[in-house]
Amino acid sequence: MKIIDGKLVSSTIRNEIKENILNAERNYGKKFKLSVIIAGDDPASEIYVRNKEKACAEVGIMSETVHLPENVSQNEIESEILLRVNDDAVDGILVQLPLPEHLDKERILKLIPPEKDVDGFSDENTGKLALGKSDGLYPCTPHGIIKLLKYYDIPLAGKNAVIIGRSNIVGKPLALMLLSEDCTVTVCHSKTKNLEDHISRADILVTAVGKKWLVDGKNLKDGVVIVDAGINREDGKIYGDVNFDSASQKADYITPVPGGVGPMTITMLLYNTYLAGIRKTEK
Amino acid sequence: MKIIDGKLVSSTIRNEIKENILNAERNYGKKFKLSVIIAGDDPASEIYVRNKEKACAEVGIMSETVHLPENVSQNEIESEILLRVNDDAVDGILVQLPLPEHLDKERILKLIPPEKDVDGFSDENTGKLALGKSDGLYPCTPHGIIKLLKYYDIPLAGKNAVIIGRSNIVGKPLALMLLSEDCTVTVCHSKTKNLEDHISRADILVTAVGKKWLVDGKNLKDGVVIVDAGINREDGKIYGDVNFDSASQKADYITPVPGGVGPMTITMLLYNTYLAGIRKTEK
Repeated sequence: MKIIDGKLVSSTIRNEIKENILNAERNYGKKFKLSVIIAGDDPASEIYVRNKEKACAEVGIMSETVHLPENVSQNEIESEILLRVNDDAVDGILVQLPLPEHLDKERILKLIPPEKDVDGFSDENTGKLALGKSDGLYPCTPHGIIKLLKYYDIPLAGKNAVIIGRSNIVGKPLALMLLSEDCTVTVCHSKTKNLEDHISRADILVTAVGKKWLVDGKNLKDGVVIVDAGINREDGKIYGDVNFDSASQKADYITPVPGGVGPMTITMLLYNTYLAGIRKTEK
Repeated sequence: MKIIDGKLVSSTIRNEIKENILNAERNYGKKFKLSVIIAGDDPASEIYVRNKEKACAEVGIMSETVHLPENVSQNEIESEILLRVNDDAVDGILVQLPLPEHLDKERILKLIPPEKDVDGFSDENTGKLALGKSDGLYPCTPHGIIKLLKYYDIPLAGKNAVIIGRSNIVGKPLALMLLSEDCTVTVCHSKTKNLEDHISRADILVTAVGKKWLVDGKNLKDGVVIVDAGINREDGKIYGDVNFDSASQKADYITPVPGGVGPMTITMLLYNTYLAGIRKTEK
């Protein structure tokens, strides 16, 4: 059994990004910049944003955080975003969710052009992913999962990939990515019957549900690869969707929680920001 | 065993569309118009386009076919499309594929705004489908399959839907639609191992491959629902991906080929054109 070390993969990729950024600076005088828009004072959002700032600094991406008050008007937040849309120096724009209730989220997110949509959540980028086009930006968490699997040279073609969870930010985009990797993909969710049957057939099992220990070792195939994208907080501790101790008896590879999928999300945000910037520069 | 009668469902839906169009004309003075762009003289394409014209006439949609020569320049075809993009009287624009080799297909298709993309193939409409948004236009063949299943009140929630084929025009969009209908969805394809195992677990089996009689009755679950989107021509006859005689021994519901999925594609094109027009009118 091998632990898929998200911190290791993450730091390897961040080093590559840092290197690439240095090269772009050397070759083109290109600087990279991410603008993060946050409204209100949700403490969790503030931590996320701070972590993104730190990660940007680490790889040499300039970051700017536009912190708007809870009662910001639709017009105000839109004009802040439009400033960045029209600023050639800004490579990526990210609106930290959730936004205050009174704002029209869809309208706000629609302002970000697909080339600067480093979260990869827009209609266009989702469509490009679904259609197998390579010129979009992919959502960070599922893309990070693919990078983990590839780092460990885990064969994907022809494998039965079973994904539990069909969210727009993990389950569905990951299904499309694993399909492009030639997996036979099954997507399970709250309405699935006989979940344990599906689990028992998985060569690659991904959980992205948010239910502590939904999966244990019981129904797993020997040699399964387990990727746990669940984050469940209980009494100040973080648990995955998978019972690690029990599941790791059966698995060939398994991600821990924390330290598995988690670190990859921000890493792929850095990657998207680099990609958005270098595409513009090399075009 | 019940045959899913695509001609019947198709004509029922076409009658509804016709009715709706009459109402829109009465209430808003609204006329509906589809513009079809075709380049070159591929005989199959010409038949398809003629069938679309006829179907439009049948439900009261005005259609216009812009037939360009094989050697049309990129500029010429683009300006023909842009005329329709900017013409408020045109509700839907469809570029008949394949286009002559020398043209930049992606650039041409990108000119069609998502609201007039009645094929539903654009990045934006694909993304909206994937994200579960209801304001897009869905690709016609998979949408037609959903309509067939609903017409016969076939329960979908919690069922194991197995789709063979992962094309951008049928397999992938249908997977996303069936996921929205609460099916547990498995997508199989040329790299899938032990296809018969997946087939044997299907409550709903959809084939969209293009291989005559890929599936017969052997591995099917009793009571399976079979939707055959395959069209395979051999000696002037049309065959599906499923051996109907053998599979119908096991199936509760099954589509014939021809006369199953086939008639639905143009019907859903009419529906999309109506939808595009009425959305504009009622906005």
